[in-house]
Amino acid sequence: MKLAILFGGTSYEHEISIVSAITLKKVLEGETPLFIFLDFKHEFYLIPSNGMIASHFSSGEYKKEKKLNLIHGGFEYKGLFLKKLFADLRIVNLIHGATGEDGTIFSMLEFNNIKTISPRREASILSYNKGLTKMYANSIGVKVLDYEIISRADRKIKKIAYPLIVKPLNLGSSIGVSVVKEHKDLEYALDVAFGYDNEAIIEPFIEGVRELNLAGTFTNRLQISTIEEPKKGAILDFDAKYLDFGREGSAKSADISKDLRKQMIEAFEKIYIPHFKGSLIRCDFFIINDEVYLNEINSIPGSLANYLFDNFVEILKNIYLPEMKKISPSYKYINKIQKAK
Amino acid sequence: MKLAILFGGTSYEHEISIVSAITLKKVLEGETPLFIFLDFKHEFYLIPSNGMIASHFSSGEYKKEKKLNLIHGGFEYKGLFLKKLFADLRIVNLIHGATGEDGTIFSMLEFNNIKTISPRREASILSYNKGLTKMYANSIGVKVLDYEIISRADRKIKKIAYPLIVKPLNLGSSIGVSVVKEHKDLEYALDVAFGYDNEAIIEPFIEGVRELNLAGTFTNRLQISTIEEPKKGAILDFDAKYLDFGREGSAKSADISKDLRKQMIEAFEKIYIPHFKGSLIRCDFFIINDEVYLNEINSIPGSLANYLFDNFVEILKNIYLPEMKKISPSYKYINKIQKAK
Repeated sequence: MKLAILFGGTSYEHEISIVSAITLKKVLEGETPLFIFLDFKHEFYLIPSNGMIASHFSSGEYKKEKKLNLIHGGFEYKGLFLKKLFADLRIVNLIHGATGEDGTIFSMLEFNNIKTISPRREASILSYNKGLTKMYANSIGVKVLDYEIISRADRKIKKIAYPLIVKPLNLGSSIGVSVVKEHKDLEYALDVAFGYDNEAIIEPFIEGVRELNLAGTFTNRLQISTIEEPKKGAILDFDAKYLDFGREGSAKSADISKDLRKQMIEAFEKIYIPHFKGSLIRCDFFIINDEVYLNEINSIPGSLANYLFDNFVEILKNIYLPEMKKISPSYKYINKIQKAK
Repeated sequence: MKLAILFGGTSYEHEISIVSAITLKKVLEGETPLFIFLDFKHEFYLIPSNGMIASHFSSGEYKKEKKLNLIHGGFEYKGLFLKKLFADLRIVNLIHGATGEDGTIFSMLEFNNIKTISPRREASILSYNKGLTKMYANSIGVKVLDYEIISRADRKIKKIAYPLIVKPLNLGSSIGVSVVKEHKDLEYALDVAFGYDNEAIIEPFIEGVRELNLAGTFTNRLQISTIEEPKKGAILDFDAKYLDFGREGSAKSADISKDLRKQMIEAFEKIYIPHFKGSLIRCDFFIINDEVYLNEINSIPGSLANYLFDNFVEILKNIYLPEMKKISPSYKYINKIQKAK
């Protein structure tokens, strides 16, 4: 079983994904994973370890690398005389945003019977669309802030009061997000959000609200990370968040009460089981009056939130991957049907 | 633009899909669509029109047909000397159940930039998992019956009283569904459901409840089908439902009040817009005290519910297909990041 980091993809978070992969290369030193890059033309490339630097991608130099074909059981490249197959892989889906976090690439890998650490289709949809995240949280009894969804065609906000926050409905990494303190700034914020998506989600903006992040996954049991209180201000600062995708090392554990810790872990478990099995996710929470509110689910967090775990590599190698049920054809009905004869 | 019917897939509904495709062949007479079969080994085959009969598949004879490769922009086959590309397709995703209705095949076709009539990823997940369908209906204000979800590990029913109905959580076409009138029959019904899925959904069974079905899609406007009251008893009878997948001709319009009709269309519109754009779906409703309750969403109904439309072929050709936003790389951030250099 060989680890392979799949990154890139055709989304606004393409560059973030490259930074994430470069970071994981450092974190996984000694494991010598494969690096598979998906470019904007939807071509896969095998990137050698020394090609894992920013300029290799921004310059287009990566196009000189071996082009890979996705086939049943793995990836292969074809030269004039030789053909090399990479099989028995354990892919780490590190494509942030569209293609990666919306279920596309997972579907393609699963169809080709390739083991993948990734949110599955349901998990993808429930975290990728922020409206569905709210719906999901409500249905499992996890608190969320009030919200409304508006479309490009109908830019009217009906119930959320100022100050508020405007986010594209289907994007992560703070891209296209604005805080709007008064009505006069609303139009511009909507223009920004609708530059990225046809729908936007509006939530109240709570100045100075406490934020706590927690990551986790399931191996043979639930694995919960260090709880971190990220530096303030980072929430809206894309450049700062960007740097976050290059994080390694160890996060400082937040100073919180036992009760809050318990609430967060309980909320995480409700969210994670069963839909998120197979993935390593980070949940970002707000704390309001000592109660936990889900802000968002990062189904493929930057650099896989490695810095929140003491034993990240060990956990990564042991994440439980649900398998698709194998079904064989019986053709016992079809021959009975007159119409089909 | 060439219509192509994609059918088969690796699910319990594989045979149903074949019947559905054979039926559409008749309905689409004169259009000469392509027929592309996906077998249990995940191989695509081009089936000639005269091969569209049950025995061609059950006998395995289809394996003598041309094997197709899915590539950017279409499907191709490779002979020793010639290579033929089928491009500019308008695929009709007619794969019922897993692979088709869970978003897998749509993701693969979209990735390869092929136009497809199909539920998109969100629509797939919201209709394929019956628990998420309930959650979705609740969130948009469409009534559903009470329910609970139980897992293979915890077979306890907490709130739904007898008589009740047990369904596998992620399957259509009445497969694995049982009505349970008293406790002594529960274990067997659960065994049946868990034979198909790890989770089951439990709902009250209402003897003699009125059922009404309505299909629809979006072309340049919402298109609503005839409302039909299906024959009673069919709900639990797989063989009867099976025959339904071979239906053509014209359905009889149900005898219902103006108000009920209005309620159904309103519920359909709430369900369909915006998540289901790109697909033609059938919603099955229960009528209780003159109010409409959503029973289930068939995101790829048998033979595409052609018998519910007066102008099915015209509508099929004009279904509006949402396009993925095209994004180009800018690489404006990545070179600023010290870590990535």
